[in-house]
Amino acid sequence: MHVVVNAATSADGKLSSRRREQIPISGDADFTRVDRLRADSDAVVVGVGTVLADDPHLTVKEEALIDERRDRGEPAHPARVVVDSRARTPTDAAVLDDAATTYVCTSERATIDDRMDLADRAELVTAGDDRVDLLRAFATLQAQGLERIMVEGGGELIFSLFEDGLVDELRVFVGPTVIGGRDAPTLADGEGFVADFPTLELESLERVGEGALLTWRTANG
Amino acid sequence: MHVVVNAATSADGKLSSRRREQIPISGDADFTRVDRLRADSDAVVVGVGTVLADDPHLTVKEEALIDERRDRGEPAHPARVVVDSRARTPTDAAVLDDAATTYVCTSERATIDDRMDLADRAELVTAGDDRVDLLRAFATLQAQGLERIMVEGGGELIFSLFEDGLVDELRVFVGPTVIGGRDAPTLADGEGFVADFPTLELESLERVGEGALLTWRTANG
Repeated sequence: MHVVVNAATSADGKLSSRRREQIPISGDADFTRVDRLRADSDAVVVGVGTVLADDPHLTVKEEALIDERRDRGEPAHPARVVVDSRARTPTDAAVLDDAATTYVCTSERATIDDRMDLADRAELVTAGDDRVDLLRAFATLQAQGLERIMVEGGGELIFSLFEDGLVDELRVFVGPTVIGGRDAPTLADGEGFVADFPTLELESLERVGEGALLTWRTANG
Repeated sequence: MHVVVNAATSADGKLSSRRREQIPISGDADFTRVDRLRADSDAVVVGVGTVLADDPHLTVKEEALIDERRDRGEPAHPARVVVDSRARTPTDAAVLDDAATTYVCTSERATIDDRMDLADRAELVTAGDDRVDLLRAFATLQAQGLERIMVEGGGELIFSLFEDGLVDELRVFVGPTVIGGRDAPTLADGEGFVADFPTLELESLERVGEGALLTWRTANG
């Protein structure tokens, strides 16, 4: 399994404003890059916070990329995965439509009723007591043949993945804007590290549209 | 007046951990760059939070750069400026030693006693009622002949400067580490923008040591 975390931040490292509203950070050039990365993935993973805030569809947009996937014998779109400890994904969320297979990873803390509601629309993966045990959940995804994993946020999930040593690559598009705010979501939120900070290696650095794309590798990657 | 904000962040946009402890983000290559930028400045500005957390000296370290300044008829070190609404700078702070002239910018909210304590060791600039009126404070600095201003943080001050439209350039060294933490200080904290986000222009992008240096210009710059 190879896990790529992909995100767009403002020049000050924010994913969105303190109101959690999506801010246009990247432009067409980065959009095209992200669409290709999706098309080259077996699964696209987000945290439930991202589903609740943005209701993304997480499908491949460019028809030519969908055709390429079909030519390779793959489904039109990568699988979608929501990490959702308490099964809070709304049953009418865009990720639950029939465009692609969707997995919802929950923990034992989710009520049976909430799980039942989702079970009609998604494959449920239950791993962990209070919160999703990411290592176990990802092992289950791997057992389903999902090897190339793309993570699209948010900051809570990204931090947890670093905490569990599950990140191989981090690709950050840094856009030409300042969002600010001590309460605005950042690329890696959670509790934060206070020692043993994960170290990265800068693999590449390039101008993309009006911003910069930084590609980092971890010791795993 | 030309205001350059310079900061080093982790790959996820943090200035330090949630414990506000300094984390070694940049290496020797970036240290040399920052020292040169200080040497090319008339004043180095920080918020009082940075003084309380790190007790920096803010002087030029490299002797050759100090000699160059003297050859140009300038003082050995740029002036130091602390933005400190309530005059909380400790009287034994490193920035208050006699290595360079120091200005402490306070507001009317600071007690007379606290201001008197600092008045022996620094030039006091009082501007604003509850918090420092940065526009007035910077105008006072300019009247003292301080034209080339370098701001070294922290995130509260940097946000306020963007809010007041006082930034010409933003130089961010992004280092090869992840700090994480929804409560860790970021490059621009404060309340945060929710609309009318300042836009930047990416002037240059280069590898420095193990990280990346992004230089942005604002519409002022």
